[in-house]
Amino acid sequence: MEYSFSKNVDALTSSAVREILKLTQGSQVISLAGGLPAEEFFPIEAMRDAFNRVFDGGNKSLQYGLTDGYIPLREWIAARMKQKNMNVDLANMILTTGSQQAVDLLCQVYLDEGDVVLVENPTYLAALQLFQFRGIRAVPVEGDAEGMDLDDLAAKVKQYRPKMVYVVPTFANPTGKVWSVERRLGLLRICRENHVLILEDDPYGELQFDLSESYPTLFSLDQHPNGSAVVYTSTFSKTVAPALRTGWAIGDAQVIQTMVRAKQAVDLHSSSIDQMALFQLLNHFDLDAHIATIRAAYQERMQLMDDLLSRQGWTDIKWNKPKGGMFFWMELPEGVKAEEMLVRAVQEGVAFVPGSPFYAEQPKANTLRLNFTHTNRENMILAIDRLSKVIGEFCQSVGQP
Amino acid sequence: MEYSFSKNVDALTSSAVREILKLTQGSQVISLAGGLPAEEFFPIEAMRDAFNRVFDGGNKSLQYGLTDGYIPLREWIAARMKQKNMNVDLANMILTTGSQQAVDLLCQVYLDEGDVVLVENPTYLAALQLFQFRGIRAVPVEGDAEGMDLDDLAAKVKQYRPKMVYVVPTFANPTGKVWSVERRLGLLRICRENHVLILEDDPYGELQFDLSESYPTLFSLDQHPNGSAVVYTSTFSKTVAPALRTGWAIGDAQVIQTMVRAKQAVDLHSSSIDQMALFQLLNHFDLDAHIATIRAAYQERMQLMDDLLSRQGWTDIKWNKPKGGMFFWMELPEGVKAEEMLVRAVQEGVAFVPGSPFYAEQPKANTLRLNFTHTNRENMILAIDRLSKVIGEFCQSVGQP
Repeated sequence: MEYSFSKNVDALTSSAVREILKLTQGSQVISLAGGLPAEEFFPIEAMRDAFNRVFDGGNKSLQYGLTDGYIPLREWIAARMKQKNMNVDLANMILTTGSQQAVDLLCQVYLDEGDVVLVENPTYLAALQLFQFRGIRAVPVEGDAEGMDLDDLAAKVKQYRPKMVYVVPTFANPTGKVWSVERRLGLLRICRENHVLILEDDPYGELQFDLSESYPTLFSLDQHPNGSAVVYTSTFSKTVAPALRTGWAIGDAQVIQTMVRAKQAVDLHSSSIDQMALFQLLNHFDLDAHIATIRAAYQERMQLMDDLLSRQGWTDIKWNKPKGGMFFWMELPEGVKAEEMLVRAVQEGVAFVPGSPFYAEQPKANTLRLNFTHTNRENMILAIDRLSKVIGEFCQSVGQP
Repeated sequence: MEYSFSKNVDALTSSAVREILKLTQGSQVISLAGGLPAEEFFPIEAMRDAFNRVFDGGNKSLQYGLTDGYIPLREWIAARMKQKNMNVDLANMILTTGSQQAVDLLCQVYLDEGDVVLVENPTYLAALQLFQFRGIRAVPVEGDAEGMDLDDLAAKVKQYRPKMVYVVPTFANPTGKVWSVERRLGLLRICRENHVLILEDDPYGELQFDLSESYPTLFSLDQHPNGSAVVYTSTFSKTVAPALRTGWAIGDAQVIQTMVRAKQAVDLHSSSIDQMALFQLLNHFDLDAHIATIRAAYQERMQLMDDLLSRQGWTDIKWNKPKGGMFFWMELPEGVKAEEMLVRAVQEGVAFVPGSPFYAEQPKANTLRLNFTHTNRENMILAIDRLSKVIGEFCQSVGQP
């Protein structure tokens, strides 16, 4: 039998990096590669109780559910969104299989092959892969520590007539960057004027270390819900647990209901038992206290990683000190190739993600991403020791200290 | 804000029928419309125990999982498939969000806009909607009670150069039809000769009333697993419970692994906690005894519906007597419009699905689908009484007895 795949399959080729990282699974390699939450904080007993309460509710809990998601959970999320100045009704919300599916559904109902999406550079790898799979062209906008450069954004909007801008404005993946309010407002103004939809991807917003600062979401700064220039998406994967794959999107009712119809076609609905269990969990569990615990733990790990890196006394290596989220973004001296360094690092027993695949254009081969949330103190000490050794070797090989 | 949706969104327009059926939710209307399993047989206590065992396994159960699915569950399914003469390795299997997502993923990696898929006429409504959403042309092949007409199939393969044939060969939705072995072999031969991939959708195969008959799957009749002309998909939705949304596809490793890469892009993975719980359930639960219970109950309901319908003494109304699955397919006298009849039926307190939307072409407005699995004895007696009254009215209006 000769198979003849669709043409977009060419865009799905497996990456060398993914193959290397696969090799580290189940091995002694300490991985700073994945964007994984720390397992030790998962509320497993609360989750057990939650599922038990769902089953107490009887057999109906195992029946087919609604495409747009379990209503009580949507009501709970709406109430939480309201606390963040995002006022939405049920018709403005869809539950999805992780927020990744929300990004995909919006792509499917809003973008055609050949359409342009403006993105930060670098940006979330899996979004770039999705755009590529769907034949959507991701065009990067210049930026700095405060977000996109608004002049370049305006110029690119004019030049490329994009239909959408994709941003992770708070604790970005991979850079850990937080947009200033001024840039947020500027992005909104430019997009509204030009009828460009904004997809605000906010998986990490709750993982904020210093609560004295305020990072309003784009959705909260815009008119809402209906007529909004923003579709906002988030997830329980980072605050509760990833295994339940429950994310959501909010936005204009027409946009969301179109996503619902697409979801009906692609998978009918996501696991309704998981949505019910999450609702039960959230009603018998102090999510804010739980998030406070995670925040403190993650901040401690971030600080440890920063200390361990700083201790190396490197002069030509830069990294951010994240205010939240899950990642350090590191820039090595020019000439160091992080993908080559990964092969060596895995031999030494540590893994990371090279930065190149996060770029829509002009990848910087000397960048890499380190996750600080998943690895405990002991392993992080070992991991940074191993990594430092390899970084030392590679810097020396390009004539750097 | 002006929104500008993708062009395939036009194919997602909500149907009048769906709107009518929405109105019946939570009302006193007895619905024979949905393809729902009977809730009273859901193994809820076994499911509770299964989830509890997953949580006993510790926090790791709440972490991210594999895109292709939880390995022990795939191994369990592989062993079960082997009992049905379908020999597959793990690389030949992907777990999906219901089998609906398996159908979609295969469409996405195998078909481009404008490609042709050959289908039975009528066939599964949601598959047709999916093809339409993806810009894929569904071309019907003539058929009878034994399956597709092989001459017409050969002619259409020659004429349309389809890339795929989509079939539900065992207890088809909506017709309840079972393909003969001869037709199965003929379909395979024609498709292999012409390099046409077959998507065998088998959600109902386990719901067989008379076990003395044997209906081998297309996949089992073909070479397998690698190089197979068949991708086979099934689900736990009908045998265990739909809420966990766990289906699977098996086929050639290259085809399946391409689906895995697409799934990585669209939602990363389906609920892994549900996959773990299913595995625990299946290891502490007699699935075959459970299926035997459901079969017996469904056969009883089918027989009751057949008796109640037969009792009406209609001479010009035809329906199948299903050998398994979930549906009766009924043909009313020419001139009766089932969509109009639905409005009246809902007033009387009973709902069904009109047959027209199940046709890729040349819809028969005088057909309808009745589900017999979800409604208990008492309600079925009421439902058929109400339905018969309405059918009587409509037949009279077109001058039939």
